[in-house]
Amino acid sequence: MKSDEIEKIDTPMFGNKWILRWEASRELKEKMMIEAGLRTPRVVKSKEDINGLCIVKLHGAAGGRGYYLVWDKASFEDGAKQLIDQKVIKSHNDLYIQEFIRGVPVYLQYFYSAITGDLELLGIDRRYESDIDGIGRIPAKQQLGAGVEPSYNIIGNIPLVLRESLLDEVYKMGESFVRAAERLVPPGMVGPFCLEGVYDREGKFTTFEFSARIVAGTNLYLDGSPYSGLVYDVPMSMGRRIAREVKTANKKGKLGKVLT
Amino acid sequence: MKSDEIEKIDTPMFGNKWILRWEASRELKEKMMIEAGLRTPRVVKSKEDINGLCIVKLHGAAGGRGYYLVWDKASFEDGAKQLIDQKVIKSHNDLYIQEFIRGVPVYLQYFYSAITGDLELLGIDRRYESDIDGIGRIPAKQQLGAGVEPSYNIIGNIPLVLRESLLDEVYKMGESFVRAAERLVPPGMVGPFCLEGVYDREGKFTTFEFSARIVAGTNLYLDGSPYSGLVYDVPMSMGRRIAREVKTANKKGKLGKVLT
Amino acid sequence: MKSDEIEKIDTPMFGNKWILRWEASRELKEKMMIEAGLRTPRVVKSKEDINGLCIVKLHGAAGGRGYYLVWDKASFEDGAKQLIDQKVIKSHNDLYIQEFIRGVPVYLQYFYSAITGDLELLGIDRRYESDIDGIGRIPAKQQLGAGVEPSYNIIGNIPLVLRESLLDEVYKMGESFVRAAERLVPPGMVGPFCLEGVYDREGKFTTFEFSARIVAGTNLYLDGSPYSGLVYDVPMSMGRRIAREVKTANKKGKLGKVLT
Repeated sequence: MKSDEIEKIDTPMFGNKWILRWEASRELKEKMMIEAGLRTPRVVKSKEDINGLCIVKLHGAAGGRGYYLVWDKASFEDGAKQLIDQKVIKSHNDLYIQEFIRGVPVYLQYFYSAITGDLELLGIDRRYESDIDGIGRIPAKQQLGAGVEPSYNIIGNIPLVLRESLLDEVYKMGESFVRAAERLVPPGMVGPFCLEGVYDREGKFTTFEFSARIVAGTNLYLDGSPYSGLVYDVPMSMGRRIAREVKTANKKGKLGKVLT
Repeated sequence: MKSDEIEKIDTPMFGNKWILRWEASRELKEKMMIEAGLRTPRVVKSKEDINGLCIVKLHGAAGGRGYYLVWDKASFEDGAKQLIDQKVIKSHNDLYIQEFIRGVPVYLQYFYSAITGDLELLGIDRRYESDIDGIGRIPAKQQLGAGVEPSYNIIGNIPLVLRESLLDEVYKMGESFVRAAERLVPPGMVGPFCLEGVYDREGKFTTFEFSARIVAGTNLYLDGSPYSGLVYDVPMSMGRRIAREVKTANKKGKLGKVLT
Repeated sequence: MKSDEIEKIDTPMFGNKWILRWEASRELKEKMMIEAGLRTPRVVKSKEDINGLCIVKLHGAAGGRGYYLVWDKASFEDGAKQLIDQKVIKSHNDLYIQEFIRGVPVYLQYFYSAITGDLELLGIDRRYESDIDGIGRIPAKQQLGAGVEPSYNIIGNIPLVLRESLLDEVYKMGESFVRAAERLVPPGMVGPFCLEGVYDREGKFTTFEFSARIVAGTNLYLDGSPYSGLVYDVPMSMGRRIAREVKTANKKGKLGKVLT
């Protein structure tokens, strides 16, 4: 379903339906992350400027397919040629280049209550992607012998917890995102969202995507997560949290705050 | 314990003891997977036919030891020579070659109730193998400098959940396996079993093994899994599920359906 | 806080505060692991003796930063020069060299009750480190093209369970550690501790560190782990286990056994 189709739905829905357009568009997405003051990968304007490891993505790509890694102009052009030959893209214009952040991927699952103004961290995971998360099981010698072109198709999610000293920044990033959404897309972020990025070797988080809605990683925590357990006495899945928010809003006569 | 020793046990046991022979034999195992219509790795008949990344396995190997990766005839012969020198095998005849499926390993834990005819997905995991799951932590330069020969010894299991859109096929594969077992090894699949394979970059699952019994990955879920929680209101481990099946069978006078 | 500052604290604290000095000092740590009969990585006395993959560490390094892998004298000196240039170390004397154990990292979380004399395994995890656990997602070609210097900064923890046949040795190692601590640092190991190491391709565990206190990996199991569930009928986090021990000690008039 396209953004304007979602926006035309008359039935009130939980969450902010206007923000989904910001998730779907590369430009709006970057505008939101910059407004929130999040560290984002440097955009490389031209293949001439590639200096060090970069990732090449398709505009509007679904599920990470077609991404590839380059380290100079020649490796960029090799990859683009293959995608053109495979008719995945028409020209270089369908591609954009980002600095590749070296580190470990982490997905932060939040819930923001527009009723209480509280931000809750309900779970953390990492994605499990094919075949990129399998190539580490092929030794370098065999990778070079047989050739490897990684792909980033999402297959599942693996649970994790973060080093405690990182949690302060996790909450700050979530709060900044909520404030930015309030300014850019009223009524702002309502309910579940996810910041998706990489922790580098300095323990700094670079956000490369956000999801302004419930994400698949929450399926790990149908029975609650190590984080939800710090906030709630009952097993709190993201689905249950949403249901509870709707109930609370209804009871307090504030449904208008959580529906769009 | 060998298959014919198990089959000679007089005491009735839960599950289908006749199916364990199909798990132990390479040929019977492949026959079962083909009967179930599962996608399996292409068998490479001869070292002359190696074209692209392949995995070489020992007939009847335990725990993944001795497996190695090749991409041409020369790399096959190098590996075989080492195993012969180490007296792990006697000749090339102890080896068979399979297409290497690039992707991420996933283990699907099912329970089939011969009483109700219901198939239940009770958990999903990935194995943690030494030293193959450690070589990704050695940079390519050091791998090439110091040399790497991967091994696949099972050390443990890591929990995961699958992308939701993949679950439909997960159930279909499980159902097909149950139907194939009914045809080939009456009374068919009774209780826990596991399909073991790899999701490739297209999100397609290739099965390379099955276990027609309880598997170690279920140890992750002694307190229930994100999947068992969708079926049961109580924490449902695989052990508890088996115990419950025996009780139900006994109550309904259908013990004959779950014992062999 | 330094070891002698901790030792000067007058307020009684749970655990053995004298053992923290043994964790902080490289020499004392090795003495303890040898006393416990644990398999440890061979120390390589001199860069002249490097033969095969080795890891170079900083004395007293925090969180795994600055570690690097070498396979000969030249690669050792390259890495040392970089750390000197970056002013991380002053000379080769700040470095020590260990045999690199090929395998998969595993962290074993124990609780020893000085009241009952029981050793409990309460959880198992693996660390998630940046950027070493991300480099496997960079294909060998790109690693060699762009260059890779791994770092070992701890970002989080991932849950796992072990192959059952390994658990016997897990308990034996824990018991040996408890006995060694009793002999070397009275009153011995009190409460939570962690053995940190690698399972190699033979399924043998090599310990490279211990923590004589609660560790971050226990954050995975605020609601209990697959192992704690075998010992306790209630969700048993490490924090709850400590609280329960203090209560029990108080009730039995044995607080002196768990406080220092």
